[in-house]
Amino acid sequence: MPSRYLSFRCSVPWLILFLEALFLIHLFFCFPHVGNIYSPSSFYPEFQDVNHMVIFGFGFFLIVLRRYGFSSTGLNFLLVVLGVQCCVLVEDLLVFLRVQQNEGGMKSLAKAVVSTTAVAISTGAVLGKANPVQLIVMSLVELIIFYVSRCINRTFLQVPDHLTLMHVHLFGAYFGVAVTSRFPEPPPGLDKNRSTPNSDLFSMLGTVFVWVFWPSFNSILAHSKKEAVLNTYLALAVSAVAAFMLSALTSKDGKFRMTHIHSAVLAGGVTISYTAHSIQHPWIAMILGLLGSVITVLGSHCLQRCFNPAFKLQDTSGVHFTFGLPAVLGAVAAVVLCVIEKGISTQWNNFSSLGYLIFVDVGAFCQTISTALLTGLITGLILNIKLLKTVHVSKYFDDQSYWEVSF
Amino acid sequence: MPSRYLSFRCSVPWLILFLEALFLIHLFFCFPHVGNIYSPSSFYPEFQDVNHMVIFGFGFFLIVLRRYGFSSTGLNFLLVVLGVQCCVLVEDLLVFLRVQQNEGGMKSLAKAVVSTTAVAISTGAVLGKANPVQLIVMSLVELIIFYVSRCINRTFLQVPDHLTLMHVHLFGAYFGVAVTSRFPEPPPGLDKNRSTPNSDLFSMLGTVFVWVFWPSFNSILAHSKKEAVLNTYLALAVSAVAAFMLSALTSKDGKFRMTHIHSAVLAGGVTISYTAHSIQHPWIAMILGLLGSVITVLGSHCLQRCFNPAFKLQDTSGVHFTFGLPAVLGAVAAVVLCVIEKGISTQWNNFSSLGYLIFVDVGAFCQTISTALLTGLITGLILNIKLLKTVHVSKYFDDQSYWEVSF
Amino acid sequence: MPSRYLSFRCSVPWLILFLEALFLIHLFFCFPHVGNIYSPSSFYPEFQDVNHMVIFGFGFFLIVLRRYGFSSTGLNFLLVVLGVQCCVLVEDLLVFLRVQQNEGGMKSLAKAVVSTTAVAISTGAVLGKANPVQLIVMSLVELIIFYVSRCINRTFLQVPDHLTLMHVHLFGAYFGVAVTSRFPEPPPGLDKNRSTPNSDLFSMLGTVFVWVFWPSFNSILAHSKKEAVLNTYLALAVSAVAAFMLSALTSKDGKFRMTHIHSAVLAGGVTISYTAHSIQHPWIAMILGLLGSVITVLGSHCLQRCFNPAFKLQDTSGVHFTFGLPAVLGAVAAVVLCVIEKGISTQWNNFSSLGYLIFVDVGAFCQTISTALLTGLITGLILNIKLLKTVHVSKYFDDQSYWEVSF
Repeated sequence: MPSRYLSFRCSVPWLILFLEALFLIHLFFCFPHVGNIYSPSSFYPEFQDVNHMVIFGFGFFLIVLRRYGFSSTGLNFLLVVLGVQCCVLVEDLLVFLRVQQNEGGMKSLAKAVVSTTAVAISTGAVLGKANPVQLIVMSLVELIIFYVSRCINRTFLQVPDHLTLMHVHLFGAYFGVAVTSRFPEPPPGLDKNRSTPNSDLFSMLGTVFVWVFWPSFNSILAHSKKEAVLNTYLALAVSAVAAFMLSALTSKDGKFRMTHIHSAVLAGGVTISYTAHSIQHPWIAMILGLLGSVITVLGSHCLQRCFNPAFKLQDTSGVHFTFGLPAVLGAVAAVVLCVIEKGISTQWNNFSSLGYLIFVDVGAFCQTISTALLTGLITGLILNIKLLKTVHVSKYFDDQSYWEVSF
Repeated sequence: MPSRYLSFRCSVPWLILFLEALFLIHLFFCFPHVGNIYSPSSFYPEFQDVNHMVIFGFGFFLIVLRRYGFSSTGLNFLLVVLGVQCCVLVEDLLVFLRVQQNEGGMKSLAKAVVSTTAVAISTGAVLGKANPVQLIVMSLVELIIFYVSRCINRTFLQVPDHLTLMHVHLFGAYFGVAVTSRFPEPPPGLDKNRSTPNSDLFSMLGTVFVWVFWPSFNSILAHSKKEAVLNTYLALAVSAVAAFMLSALTSKDGKFRMTHIHSAVLAGGVTISYTAHSIQHPWIAMILGLLGSVITVLGSHCLQRCFNPAFKLQDTSGVHFTFGLPAVLGAVAAVVLCVIEKGISTQWNNFSSLGYLIFVDVGAFCQTISTALLTGLITGLILNIKLLKTVHVSKYFDDQSYWEVSF
Repeated sequence: MPSRYLSFRCSVPWLILFLEALFLIHLFFCFPHVGNIYSPSSFYPEFQDVNHMVIFGFGFFLIVLRRYGFSSTGLNFLLVVLGVQCCVLVEDLLVFLRVQQNEGGMKSLAKAVVSTTAVAISTGAVLGKANPVQLIVMSLVELIIFYVSRCINRTFLQVPDHLTLMHVHLFGAYFGVAVTSRFPEPPPGLDKNRSTPNSDLFSMLGTVFVWVFWPSFNSILAHSKKEAVLNTYLALAVSAVAAFMLSALTSKDGKFRMTHIHSAVLAGGVTISYTAHSIQHPWIAMILGLLGSVITVLGSHCLQRCFNPAFKLQDTSGVHFTFGLPAVLGAVAAVVLCVIEKGISTQWNNFSSLGYLIFVDVGAFCQTISTALLTGLITGLILNIKLLKTVHVSKYFDDQSYWEVSF
């Protein structure tokens, strides 16, 4: 057992420096490819909403532990800005390999910010257990694999580009769950992985930000923005209301539980993400929001009692039920809605085309989730090698491992 | 005296479920009426500002009590999202009854969000005293009555639609004051209805959000948006400055008092709400902001010393002087300004038309305030029947009644 | 040594009232000049971003002291709204004197809000040491001198208007440093000028807001907005990453230090402010962001160990290295980039025009910084006369001097 906190002076700075040098060299030499980086694209307000949501919203959403506030916001900030630059590099590489068309400046940046949501979500799963080096390595690996997974979906399964991005919650959650399963469990009597009223308030602050900006997130790259905004808003509203209902129903004494509220108010946004642009009736969006909330709250009870102890995994901020389960529900709903719509429009005659549609959607879903789980497990194993200075379980969930804290 | 906290498991969830079912059934069957729910309307940024202001701003503005942070933000969130859905339902009902034209999607939602401000304000008056069931019932009753009151103003007094919405502060404040007067007073020695520096900082956070987004609130439905934005900004700026001046003048030792700042910086926005779109000279907007701040700070002293003890009412977050008095001032100013403008343009010849103008404006004001007070009193009486599980005064102002709190 | 806190009842309110009366009278009589105050200009979203950034972002960014939260946010709020009105007055005066063209409503307001950033920055330098009267006087003097300095740059050195505004960080930082050098040092054993984890989290909240809205700040008055937004974003991203790298490299045990993060993530935005609109290659923006971060973190060590003790000055929230040094770097970079660009385009033939360019840029820089330092020193001397009720060093950094605080 180590007598003191580990020093990351010889690893974190040089890793970051190496990455920054890479990004700079790439942008310096990839000159012709970024010739149109300043090309016009006029969604600055939405871009800023999404940027705000990912950096501020998720950063404060993750403050759930009593002594881990600095790391929650600070490291989320670091990972997002590193991730954005990494995404731009990967995207340029794909353009260079002719896998993808060049889209220039703001749009490329917007996609990068949306993609880094996966990192923010996965970070939530290993929150307090992974040190900065592990988090940085995890982010880079995750983003590269996410781009590869998107490429497969786009190229082989012909999924539209903005829909491949919407797998970000599914990918982030299951990648995070797989990674966290490879970390040793914290000792049972640990006090530090609980929240205080103050940390819960900060987390509420972040949650509300994520909630408010979610319509921008779902509509930024969609073709029919108005539908996407309105459906997302309705789904979020219903899931927020349902969160309170289900929390009071399932907790002791009929009281509200803050973690339920944090998770379930966002479930509607995740569930609707695949279908926000295509739903034509508001009540469908509302039903999806309701189901998302139900699956999140029920999931939080089932997972924490049965699944997590069985697999000996600890999902610190509950990303499995907050983002994972609603995303699965959303993917299933997308298939069902698509089939019903096509079926009605062709009067259920053209079964082969229906079958093809189902094959594509289910294929993209299975490919994404299996890639996430498999690569997550491998990443988890890699992260726990000695070289990366794994934190001892007694130092889990503590800002003092990574920050100079004065009381 | 109850020995433990009440359980709301059998009331809150089922009430919410019933309401959600109602909204869903309505949207399912009112299909033809919402055919144009996705019709174009391009004020998404302003809509989001107002949404942010009502959910985040008011939610954190209400954190004034030391042990009531979860309920302040959480229940405000619940009431706003429930209220928005209720407003959409009521509006569709009015369209169905041919009282009003259909306006489709985003605009209808924007009006709904603006209307729910009344609920957020009334909640401030009964903060910590009403339980969730009481709050939900109060919100629904209040919103329905507010829509009826607006209908009367629009139909019989020919007040333009967006101006009827601006009565929201007046209605919300006086409805809340009337409701809170029917609740038993907390025992005098209670410690829980005070604030801490930390809760005051969170409240400041919410206040600044409300302040910053107020120009969007006043301009979202106005015809001349630029005037509305600029006048509101100037009024807010002057009232913020005046708030500091008056707070130092009226408090002991010339120190600033946080509650004064919270209330009075917002007074300008309330005062200008009726006239923001029509004022043609910036100095008028500034004078109104100054007067709003004066009436708020003086009102806070008078009300807390004379009015509240006399009527045995406790207005927890001071909505009477924060929103009520400035709204009265704003309504009076609207009449005066309108008369002067008309008088100058007709060279004081056409007294009958002037009289009609005064009659309409004063009539709308009197109708709104009397409806708010009367229905507020009745609602307050209804809320205090045994069925709704009134909270005992010793359990007032405490998150632990409704939330699982871990320290 | 005073036995109790000073009362500001006879000074603060009357000073504010006098100023407000001045603004009102001015707007009342300057009627013809503000005839087009409601003229169209369509950057309301950006304006609101900047407004939010200055009032909310800087207000919470300044919460670095454990017992000075109310004053940090509250007084920043007061100074900004006073400053905005003062700027509008000064600008109208300049229009009246024919020094400048009239630009009407929103644009004039936007410039005013950008200018008040200087006040927010200078406040950071004297945070906790100056009383409200001193702060108000300082703000007014500073804003007037900043307008004069801008006038000189625009009239005699032909610097474009929006670039003169970008000297705001340089001016604010060095004015603040000069003012704070005239205040007596706090006693060495004082506990109140340290931070707590909670105050650091609030400060992080403000920092993230400033970070997110910075692209709007740099682009609001620029001609080529897209370039300005994108370059600023890239510079900020790199400086955020570099902040973590350098903090871990330079602090004990390789831990992150919160003050480094607060300062250095913003350095990129300051450094790029002069050149954001004109840089044509993203890697240059990124290099500037990196250098900004380097100079901030190294500067924070050098200044706190050598410079500040030598000059006996205490720069409470470190504005010298947060805003001053990166602004100097940015100004130097602007000259270098401009010379290289011109040199390449003229194939290094036209040395006289190059010399003129250098002369203009260096001249504007030297004029701004020397004016800031000189007038700052004089202002500091004036502020410490008896009349303005200087605070005794034992009452430094304490909310209770100016606020009614209840624990």
